[in-house]
Amino acid sequence: MSQAKTAISPTREENYAEWYQQVVRAADLAEVSPVRGCMVIKPWGYAIWENMQRKLDDMFKETGHKNAYFPLFIPLSFLEKEAEHVEGFAKECAVVTHHRLEVGKDGKLVPAGELEEPLVVRPTSETIIGASFAKWVQSYRDLPLLINQWANVVRWELRTRLFLRTTEFLWQEGHTAHATSEEAIAETMQMLRVYAEFAEQWMAMPVIQGEKTAGERFPGAVQTFCIEAMMQDRKALQAGTSHFLGQNFAKASGIQFLDDKGVLSHAWTTSWGVSTRLVGGMLMTHSDDDGFICPPKLAPVHVVILPVTHKAEERQNVLDYCNALAKELRAQRYGELPIRVEIDDRDQRGGDKLWQWVKKGVPLRLEIGPRDIQSDSVFMARRDQPPKQKGAVPRAQFVATVGSILQEMHDGLFARALAHREQHTHRIDSKEEFYKFFTPSRKDDDENAPAPIHGGFALTHFSGDVELEKQIKDELSVTVRCIPLEPSEPGTCPFTGKPSKQRVVWAKSY
Amino acid sequence: MSQAKTAISPTREENYAEWYQQVVRAADLAEVSPVRGCMVIKPWGYAIWENMQRKLDDMFKETGHKNAYFPLFIPLSFLEKEAEHVEGFAKECAVVTHHRLEVGKDGKLVPAGELEEPLVVRPTSETIIGASFAKWVQSYRDLPLLINQWANVVRWELRTRLFLRTTEFLWQEGHTAHATSEEAIAETMQMLRVYAEFAEQWMAMPVIQGEKTAGERFPGAVQTFCIEAMMQDRKALQAGTSHFLGQNFAKASGIQFLDDKGVLSHAWTTSWGVSTRLVGGMLMTHSDDDGFICPPKLAPVHVVILPVTHKAEERQNVLDYCNALAKELRAQRYGELPIRVEIDDRDQRGGDKLWQWVKKGVPLRLEIGPRDIQSDSVFMARRDQPPKQKGAVPRAQFVATVGSILQEMHDGLFARALAHREQHTHRIDSKEEFYKFFTPSRKDDDENAPAPIHGGFALTHFSGDVELEKQIKDELSVTVRCIPLEPSEPGTCPFTGKPSKQRVVWAKSY
Repeated sequence: MSQAKTAISPTREENYAEWYQQVVRAADLAEVSPVRGCMVIKPWGYAIWENMQRKLDDMFKETGHKNAYFPLFIPLSFLEKEAEHVEGFAKECAVVTHHRLEVGKDGKLVPAGELEEPLVVRPTSETIIGASFAKWVQSYRDLPLLINQWANVVRWELRTRLFLRTTEFLWQEGHTAHATSEEAIAETMQMLRVYAEFAEQWMAMPVIQGEKTAGERFPGAVQTFCIEAMMQDRKALQAGTSHFLGQNFAKASGIQFLDDKGVLSHAWTTSWGVSTRLVGGMLMTHSDDDGFICPPKLAPVHVVILPVTHKAEERQNVLDYCNALAKELRAQRYGELPIRVEIDDRDQRGGDKLWQWVKKGVPLRLEIGPRDIQSDSVFMARRDQPPKQKGAVPRAQFVATVGSILQEMHDGLFARALAHREQHTHRIDSKEEFYKFFTPSRKDDDENAPAPIHGGFALTHFSGDVELEKQIKDELSVTVRCIPLEPSEPGTCPFTGKPSKQRVVWAKSY
Repeated sequence: MSQAKTAISPTREENYAEWYQQVVRAADLAEVSPVRGCMVIKPWGYAIWENMQRKLDDMFKETGHKNAYFPLFIPLSFLEKEAEHVEGFAKECAVVTHHRLEVGKDGKLVPAGELEEPLVVRPTSETIIGASFAKWVQSYRDLPLLINQWANVVRWELRTRLFLRTTEFLWQEGHTAHATSEEAIAETMQMLRVYAEFAEQWMAMPVIQGEKTAGERFPGAVQTFCIEAMMQDRKALQAGTSHFLGQNFAKASGIQFLDDKGVLSHAWTTSWGVSTRLVGGMLMTHSDDDGFICPPKLAPVHVVILPVTHKAEERQNVLDYCNALAKELRAQRYGELPIRVEIDDRDQRGGDKLWQWVKKGVPLRLEIGPRDIQSDSVFMARRDQPPKQKGAVPRAQFVATVGSILQEMHDGLFARALAHREQHTHRIDSKEEFYKFFTPSRKDDDENAPAPIHGGFALTHFSGDVELEKQIKDELSVTVRCIPLEPSEPGTCPFTGKPSKQRVVWAKSY
C-alpha cells in the first residue's frame, strides 16, 4: 500500500476538527448512527471504554462506593423539584409520552396509549436517585451513603460530535449523602482527586483541578469542581466534574436523617461523573497525523504480533514462534495489568495490516519473519515513534522489558502533553493581550477555511464579574475553565481593574 | 432479636408469590421505584448482576465475541422493517415524541419540540444493530461478525414483578452475522450451550435446553431455542433464549455480502440474550423460608466474619484476629475466584447482624469471639444448613478447605434443585391426567387464597397443533415450554391422537 506523507488526511495543522473525525474513523472507534446525534461505539472504542470502566470502578470501590442501578425514566414532577436543575435540563430532554404503537389511518404506525405524566429519559439522575435516598436514609447510622451508577444518559444536543458531545452517552454518576457539609465537601474533593489521578496515571493526560465559576456550575449545585485538559488544538476539554450539592437536592427529595442527638436534618449530597467523552479527549491529547495513539494502560492490545511469511512452507514455523512469544508475553505484567497480546494472522497484505494497527494506536507492533526467528529476535516498532523507525531486539530482552517499555511510553506521552500545555499557557495581564491571544491570525483570505490553531490557556486575574464573563464568552467564545485549586498570587483584574484573589484559566473549549 | 419460626413470612407453602417479594426485600436486592414498572437494583442485587456479567462476558469473549454499543433509540421506520417483529413489540413500546420541555399555560412543564419521526426506546436491538451490520459487512471476509451489547431495554409490561418482569431491565444481547445457514445455526446452538453451562455451573440451576414452538417464538425468528428451569413453586422460568433469525433481519436491514465466488447474498443472523431476570430465577430456585440463598460462585461475599465481643477490652484483639483471618482467606481460591470476605464490625446487636446475613444469602458465616481465638478455631454456619446448625472448626482447617466447602455447597444446591425438578416432572399420556395435573386442589373454600403449589413439568407427546396449544393456554395457563433437544421415543399425541415425534415439556410459567 502506498502511503501518503501521513496516514490521516487532513493533518491536525490543516483542519483539526476534520482530522479528529478521520482519526476516529481510521481507528474504528465509533461511527454516527441513523439516530440523530447518537453514536455507535465500535468494538475497538468500546474496549477502551471497558478498560476505563474497570479501573475507575476499582478506584470507586477502593474509596468505599457501591454500584446500584436506578430507572432510565424520570417523571416530569421529579425533575421539577429543584428549580435550577429543571431549568438547566429542560431544553435538552427526550420525552416519552406514549407507551405503545398502533396502526394509524394511513396504515403507518403512530404512538398510542398516552401517559398521564410524561417521562423524561434521564439527562442525569439526582432527582430519581434522591427519591431512593430519601427512603434509605433514616438515621445518621445510614450515612455516609456512597453509591455509583454506570448508565446511559440522554441530552438532546443540537450540535454533536462522536464521543465529545452526543445525544446519548455512557457515563458513571456517583451520588452520595452525608451528615455534614464538611464530609460532603471532603467527598467532592476526594472524587475530583480520583478523576485527576485517573486522567494523569491512566490516560497520560495532564489536568488542572479547579472550581467552576457560577455561570458554569451544574444546575442545582452549590459548587462544581472539574478537571480540565488542553487538547492539541489548545482548546480545553472538561474531562470530569464533581459537585457539592449542599442541601439543595436533599430538600427537593426529602433526604432527612435523625442525628445522634435525635434532631431531624437534611443530608448533604454530592454527585460526580465522567463519560465516554474521555475517549475523545484522550484521542485528541495524544494522537498524531498517522492516527490514534492509545496510552498503554488503556490499550485493548499492548502488543500486536504480525507474522510475516512469503512462502507457504514458512508459515507454520512462524506462527508457532509467534504463539510461543505471545504466551511468554502474556505471562509478563505491566504494573497491575497482564500484557495484552494479539496475533494478526489475517490473510491480508502486510503493509495494509501494519497501517491498520498504526491507525488503531496499538503501543507496540512486532513483525516476525523467518530471519527474526533465526536470530531469535523481534522486529519492533513503537507507536510513539515515527512509523518507519523500527529495529530488531533480542526476543528475551523484549520479553523481559515489555512492561518497562510500555511505562516509558506512558511517561513520554504524559510529558509531551504537559510540555504542550505549558508551552501554550500564558500569564496575561492586559485586556488587549487577552483579546489578541484568542483571535486567530488567518494566513489566507478564505473565510471558509478552518481557523488556524491558536490561543491556549490564558491565566489572568479576574474579579469574578458575571456580566463580564458573559461578554467575553459572547465576543471570543472563551470562558473561565476553572479557578485552579493551586493558589496563585493576588492581583488586579485586567478587565475591571478590581482586586482579584487569584488567577483563573480562560480558554476556548469543547 | 426474637425470631419467628422462619425469618421470612409468609413461607413458600403459604404464599409463594408474596414469599418471593419478601425475600427480595429482606435480602436488600431491589425495590420498586416511583416509575411505573421500573425497579431500583440495590447494591447487593447489583453486585450479583455484576458477578453474572463478568462471567458471561468472559464466556462470550472466549467464544470470539466483542462488545460494542448501539443507540438506545430506534426510529419507528426501522422497527417497521420486519413485519412480525414490529407486531410483536408494538404493544409495549415506550415512545419518545418530543425533545424538550417548556412552561405551559398553567405554569407546568409540558413536552415541546415534537420530533418528525417518533423514536422507540429499544425493546431489543435487531433492527438498529442490523443497520450497522449492513455497513460493516461487504464481503465474506467480514464474516462471521460476532457482537455483544450490555444494555438496558424497555418493554411496557402491564403486570410487573421485581427482576422477573420489569418495564426496564438490564441484559446482554448478542447479534451475529454469518455466511451460511449452517454457521448461524451452529452459533445459535453454541450460545444456548453457553447459557446452559452458565446456569448450571454458576447459578447451580439445572435447565432443560430446547426449542420453542411457533407460538412462543421470538417475533421475526425462524427458530427460538431456550433454557427452562423449574422454580420451587414448580412453574417454569425461561432463563435465556437464542434465536436463529435466518435471513429475515438481513433482508429487512440489507445485510449483504459478496461470497468467495463474487455472488451477492444476504447474511444469516442470530441473536441471543439473558437479563436481570436471572437474579429472580436464581433466587426462586434456591432460597428458603429464612431468605435468599446465593449460589457461592455468584455471591458478592463468600464468607462474612462477625466479631463477637462482650467487653470493650476484648474488641481490638478479636478484630486483629478477624483481620488476619480475612487476609488468609482472601489468599485462598474457589476455582477461578478469589475468596471474597467481609468483616461486619458494625455497632449492632449480634443477632440482628447475623440474621441480616442469613437473609442476604451469604454462603458462610463465621462468628469469632475470645474463646474461638483461644482454641484457634472459627465458629461456622453454612447457609445451606438450618440457621442454628453451627460448629467450631480449627482455623487452619477452615482456611485450607474453604474453597472445597463452597464447591460442596454449589453441588448440593444443584443436586437439590435437580431432585426437585425430577420429583415434579411427570410423563403424562392422557388428556384427563394432564388437566388434573395442572388443576390446583384447594384445601379451603377461600377463593382469595393463593393457589397451593401444584403441577410441575408434564412431558407429553404433542402433534404440534397450534390451535390446540392456544386452547390449553387459555384453559389452564399452561404452555409448551420447549421441545427438548434431548430426544425421546416417538408416540401418540394424547390430545389429538395424531402421531408425535417426541415428548414436549408443558408447564405454567413466569
